[in-house]
Amino acid sequence: MPELRKDPITGRWVIIASDRAKRPSDFTRQEVVSRGNANCPLCGGHEHRTPPEILAYRNGGGANEPGWTLRVIPNRFPALRVEGELTREGEGIYDKMAGIGAHEVIIESPDHVLSTGDLSEKQVEDVYWAFRDRINDLKRDRRLKYVILFKNHGEAAGSSLEHSHSQLIALPVVPKRVQDELDGTRRYYEFRERCVYCDMVRQELEDNTRLVLETDHLVVISPYAPRFPFETWIVPKRHASHFEEADIATVQSLGSATRTLIRKMDKVLERPPFNFMLHTAPIQEPPSHNYHWHLEVIPRLTRVAGFEWGTGLYINPTPPEEATRYLREARI
Amino acid sequence: MPELRKDPITGRWVIIASDRAKRPSDFTRQEVVSRGNANCPLCGGHEHRTPPEILAYRNGGGANEPGWTLRVIPNRFPALRVEGELTREGEGIYDKMAGIGAHEVIIESPDHVLSTGDLSEKQVEDVYWAFRDRINDLKRDRRLKYVILFKNHGEAAGSSLEHSHSQLIALPVVPKRVQDELDGTRRYYEFRERCVYCDMVRQELEDNTRLVLETDHLVVISPYAPRFPFETWIVPKRHASHFEEADIATVQSLGSATRTLIRKMDKVLERPPFNFMLHTAPIQEPPSHNYHWHLEVIPRLTRVAGFEWGTGLYINPTPPEEATRYLREARI
Repeated sequence: MPELRKDPITGRWVIIASDRAKRPSDFTRQEVVSRGNANCPLCGGHEHRTPPEILAYRNGGGANEPGWTLRVIPNRFPALRVEGELTREGEGIYDKMAGIGAHEVIIESPDHVLSTGDLSEKQVEDVYWAFRDRINDLKRDRRLKYVILFKNHGEAAGSSLEHSHSQLIALPVVPKRVQDELDGTRRYYEFRERCVYCDMVRQELEDNTRLVLETDHLVVISPYAPRFPFETWIVPKRHASHFEEADIATVQSLGSATRTLIRKMDKVLERPPFNFMLHTAPIQEPPSHNYHWHLEVIPRLTRVAGFEWGTGLYINPTPPEEATRYLREARI
Repeated sequence: MPELRKDPITGRWVIIASDRAKRPSDFTRQEVVSRGNANCPLCGGHEHRTPPEILAYRNGGGANEPGWTLRVIPNRFPALRVEGELTREGEGIYDKMAGIGAHEVIIESPDHVLSTGDLSEKQVEDVYWAFRDRINDLKRDRRLKYVILFKNHGEAAGSSLEHSHSQLIALPVVPKRVQDELDGTRRYYEFRERCVYCDMVRQELEDNTRLVLETDHLVVISPYAPRFPFETWIVPKRHASHFEEADIATVQSLGSATRTLIRKMDKVLERPPFNFMLHTAPIQEPPSHNYHWHLEVIPRLTRVAGFEWGTGLYINPTPPEEATRYLREARI
């Protein structure tokens, strides 16, 4: 019997189609493989082939020279630009504003490594430090309201470069998806005077059926109402609305847990394409007792089609309890 | 300079990246082509290979025999089922309910035709009559709150059968995307005492820069803030919240306009995969002065990636005014 489950944060329903439950091998995966690195502009030694760096972590060398371990550069084809004025304008019933913002690329290694799972723990951790450093710089520009860190891994997940990288986009608006989460967590707080993510962490630790792994600082869970098969969230145990306020131990733990999760997915789902997105509170807002930053990871195994576009509901053929079992058992 | 535009209904922002404006030939399309019909269970003469029909329009023959021109059957792998009780249950902080609903397939022709553009006008119109007939039947089941008609055309759009068909899913909840539209149109009505879709039709007819075509009964437009390149909406001129209340002339016009639009897309974008979704008011609710039914058509030309999943914002590389020009000029 299929089941409808409700995401406790946004109120979004998903259909868990357990009748046609899919095991990992039932999906048509597009394994992410290398086509070679001869022409890769992100590799160490090719610094002249990218725009000048905004930030780099280095063992040696000067700006835009080899010797870096992580490098942040502007996107060559940015979706938004920092230059210009944040003009707002109406056009009859419509509203528009200038495309002010930032679009940066975080190169995660000087070597031509493909997957997060192939980086060292320190390298994955450094991606999060770079993100924190960039937020702290970008938030001084008061026009910017939100910064998202995300990764597209593999062509089917929207990536055009195979060299392991993440991206960040700074926006002059709080995006709708984030506003839905902010509204949902506020409603929950008004009703219960507790943070819904904190409640979720408590319940998942107790239930233990959707808990993929636990560290001192965070939990890795299959959410109760996942949109996609093997969708997995990493949630810090201690309440914090803003990622950039996380302490050293939590960021270290996040780096290590991200790497372990991706290695487990690489094992169970045979190096699938995936996206991850770091959800954090709007950068200009004070700490909030209802919002709670976290990371969402989605392997790309199914196609989103007319039903999903039309309704915002998702049909998920893999119950999260089953996905959890596969991920837990994966030896890496 | 990129531009942020706001959808006047849901408040969703999109980034129109005009710097990297893409023409039709810039997209990696997956042209939808036939792999033959030898094994097609939807073809006329293969009625025994599908579940028994729920509805058929016929020139002759008995139930589940040849002679039909359109046939509605239950989906063999339904996402939801009519049988059972609509139980609701909590699991700690979570909520679930039984997967009650319906999932049906509308076979649009007995011949092995691939695209809506290859059907006759009467055949496309009949899809909408079938949808109306099915809504009027399903709404008697008071557990069902919403019915969506949608089409997945081509593998990249989520279709597994190439024979031209649409699907309908009846749900025991009003889906989030639809609720967002209902809320947005209500807010607009409270502020202006007018329907936002009616205002949009008026403005598009006057501006004439996003108007793909106009008939006596409806307009075909590129919306002001489209999520996707060549996203196109068909909106009736006369206000009506519920599709099932549409008069004969409007449904005829909708059939003809849908076919013309798809033929234009087939020409400009070389038979692209696409989805369409009919948006209509919840079936158990009385007529509303703020909601306005319409059809949304999305050719699948780009990939949705981490940024879109994380924010609900979309980056669209083709300004709607340009898409309009291509579609207008396409000779079919």
